[in-house]
Amino acid sequence: MQEESPIESAPPRTVGVALVGCGIVGSGVLKVLADQGRLITRRTGVELVVRHVIVRDPHRAHPPRDLPPGTPAPSADFTPVLADRNVQIVVELVGGTTRAYEVVAASLRAGRSVVTANKALLAARGPELFALARDHHAGIGFEASSAGGIPVVQALMHGLVGNRIDALVGIVNGTCNFILTQMTRAGKTYAEALAEAQRLGFAEADPAMDVKGRDAAQKLALLASLAFDTRVSEEHVLVEGIDTLDAADIRYAGELGYVIKLLAVGERSQESLSLRVAPTLVSREDVLADVSGSFNAVSVYGSAVGHALFYGRGAGSLPTASAVVSDIVQCALGLPQLALRSMPVLSSPPSTPLLPTDRILARHYLRLTARDEPGVLAGVTRCLGDERISIASFLQHEPATGTTGVPLVITTHHAREGAVRRAIQRIDALPTILAPTVCLRVLDVPKEFAA
Amino acid sequence: MQEESPIESAPPRTVGVALVGCGIVGSGVLKVLADQGRLITRRTGVELVVRHVIVRDPHRAHPPRDLPPGTPAPSADFTPVLADRNVQIVVELVGGTTRAYEVVAASLRAGRSVVTANKALLAARGPELFALARDHHAGIGFEASSAGGIPVVQALMHGLVGNRIDALVGIVNGTCNFILTQMTRAGKTYAEALAEAQRLGFAEADPAMDVKGRDAAQKLALLASLAFDTRVSEEHVLVEGIDTLDAADIRYAGELGYVIKLLAVGERSQESLSLRVAPTLVSREDVLADVSGSFNAVSVYGSAVGHALFYGRGAGSLPTASAVVSDIVQCALGLPQLALRSMPVLSSPPSTPLLPTDRILARHYLRLTARDEPGVLAGVTRCLGDERISIASFLQHEPATGTTGVPLVITTHHAREGAVRRAIQRIDALPTILAPTVCLRVLDVPKEFAA
Repeated sequence: MQEESPIESAPPRTVGVALVGCGIVGSGVLKVLADQGRLITRRTGVELVVRHVIVRDPHRAHPPRDLPPGTPAPSADFTPVLADRNVQIVVELVGGTTRAYEVVAASLRAGRSVVTANKALLAARGPELFALARDHHAGIGFEASSAGGIPVVQALMHGLVGNRIDALVGIVNGTCNFILTQMTRAGKTYAEALAEAQRLGFAEADPAMDVKGRDAAQKLALLASLAFDTRVSEEHVLVEGIDTLDAADIRYAGELGYVIKLLAVGERSQESLSLRVAPTLVSREDVLADVSGSFNAVSVYGSAVGHALFYGRGAGSLPTASAVVSDIVQCALGLPQLALRSMPVLSSPPSTPLLPTDRILARHYLRLTARDEPGVLAGVTRCLGDERISIASFLQHEPATGTTGVPLVITTHHAREGAVRRAIQRIDALPTILAPTVCLRVLDVPKEFAA
Repeated sequence: MQEESPIESAPPRTVGVALVGCGIVGSGVLKVLADQGRLITRRTGVELVVRHVIVRDPHRAHPPRDLPPGTPAPSADFTPVLADRNVQIVVELVGGTTRAYEVVAASLRAGRSVVTANKALLAARGPELFALARDHHAGIGFEASSAGGIPVVQALMHGLVGNRIDALVGIVNGTCNFILTQMTRAGKTYAEALAEAQRLGFAEADPAMDVKGRDAAQKLALLASLAFDTRVSEEHVLVEGIDTLDAADIRYAGELGYVIKLLAVGERSQESLSLRVAPTLVSREDVLADVSGSFNAVSVYGSAVGHALFYGRGAGSLPTASAVVSDIVQCALGLPQLALRSMPVLSSPPSTPLLPTDRILARHYLRLTARDEPGVLAGVTRCLGDERISIASFLQHEPATGTTGVPLVITTHHAREGAVRRAIQRIDALPTILAPTVCLRVLDVPKEFAA
């Protein structure tokens, strides 16, 4: 082992930070800086000093007990932040797209780099803000905006930059994954599992954004824009939530060797892109099947790397703060500023046309509710056969006492969404079918990379 | 969607690259640049041009069919490389520490940035080379040196920079993981699984570096130096290979809910660091248990992020090339050069003392071979109890016909390595014990982060 290298003894460079918004994530950022500030300095030669904490109502602010030494009291006035020449980095954690936009745009115009966890803002004004940053030699860090503490933005922008990405498959909503894990492992209904998630703080009182899949769709839009070098937003994503999912389908999927996950899938096929968020059957052999509880993961299929997966906590105070602090450090080192000079981050023009929904090719899971009488199957297979949909597996149990109808569970080989929808319409019109057919997708990963 | 942003129409900046060494990884790099060169330019504004391909014997070189346009014929002479002012980046893929050192040191002295996959070189001369790079405003990229295509070096250096790392647990040798997966899933013996791995190209004719754990130990040393801000090398790692592993232990571990993986573990406890590579029991609930075949993964437990995991292919031509090309792009953008100005990469002085081996605290799996007679267990439990080792589970089957002795399988609660070794010594001296006791570790992850 060698003696201390000269760089170790150089005095650290001080970089001033302003925190705008100090809720759950902001408090986490202050805690990480208080606890690991010295370690960060040792690792990077940079000493981060929080010079301003801006909140809406300073009287109602609850900053954490362990503040980094010298942190000023919270204030409501943003004006002094940009007047302070010792502030190099502004961390925007207010959310929304109005005040957040003002804070970010003003900071960039003043040559300050910005760190943000605000995926809505990036979706609404991304290209404009990155152009502004470029014009003013500033950087933008947004690692926390799509998968909490998992450094997947960095991986897509830098670590996998030499790969054409063929597919991106993510579990990107911890609330839904917690609920589905409870339904799968403890056999709970959706309502029971949601109540449990709310009790433990994994779901909000109004869980709609999460359970209806909108949060996942926004995250997918951001990740897909990076992965596929295009510009897509929430409205390009076909979205189904987990709020109508029946516990029975989780059970039947289990019997067939699958677990059900809310997947965000971006896939390139025939030079088109398809984007969808939906409860999907994942083979138990797939690493994604083991992503449980509030954990998130993103699988990426690249032309050179093959299958890569990034796993961790996608939300929460400290995990999200981990990503925000990483971005603060990168900006303090000047890295995003330099990268932005030549990288068109989130500003690529749309490069790949979107595949019309009815042409998306996938395997499907169908659960029919049929009368317990002969000839049912013949009618059903005719509806499928007429649309050239072939059956991969078939499951029928004896009818449970006290229930109406017999569940018939079918998985199909690859078929187009449009054909499947038409077949279901005809199936549900058969006199032997007693309830609307449930249709879920089955995850299918690029063949050459199947482990 | 908006119109094309100005940066899209700016002409790309051309960056010259020299490839020194063109074997499996080098050919992969040429293929990635040929296939994805335009995409890389679109993403980064940089056009990479391979200006030199240096090989030992140009007559025996087999460059891939699809070369990037304009790639020169392979040559044996390195001298023109540094005379070429249009070469900004030298990619060292010759391996070893003599010629590789000369190439890297000369390139850095000439102000060229270096990309290398050479963990042996970094272990032997890391601090010296990083100081050289710093002095000459050059960068060093080494993502490919420890986990192939998985961007974990970047994650440790940047994405998780705000985290004190408490533990790092990796499956970092694809050969061993392929063999263990074959033994687990197909019930093969070690010899059968090794032969299969050799037949499929997953193991070399002389597999010692892999199966004896040395390759994993070298990778662990590099990853641990980054994660724990210290400077450790292979000799600091306690190493056991998989070449003496008995298929019986894989079976018994399975009955207890575990799979056996060759784990590389770095762990911080009581302000000391322990480093070990050994076949280890991993709970089937752990995501690492599902890392199969030649895939690798690295679990990281950070103070803010909690549990994060990075999964992908740790070896092979294209996956390794994915990491090399990423480093080339980073150097072309100037990012490692800038980071190195203030980050003491792989040059931190040793910061954390190493825990003496006999004080490492772990759970253990013991398989005893005992005479089928009364009183055996009393003697064994006395040996364990005297060392204050308590039993967590116990498994005994009826003796198989034709075998000598009965296998007794015990898992322990936490115990120090030294105490376990002493207990085994006494157990093996008991007249009722017929063969040396097999002792394996059981993976234990930081409690607060158990999912």
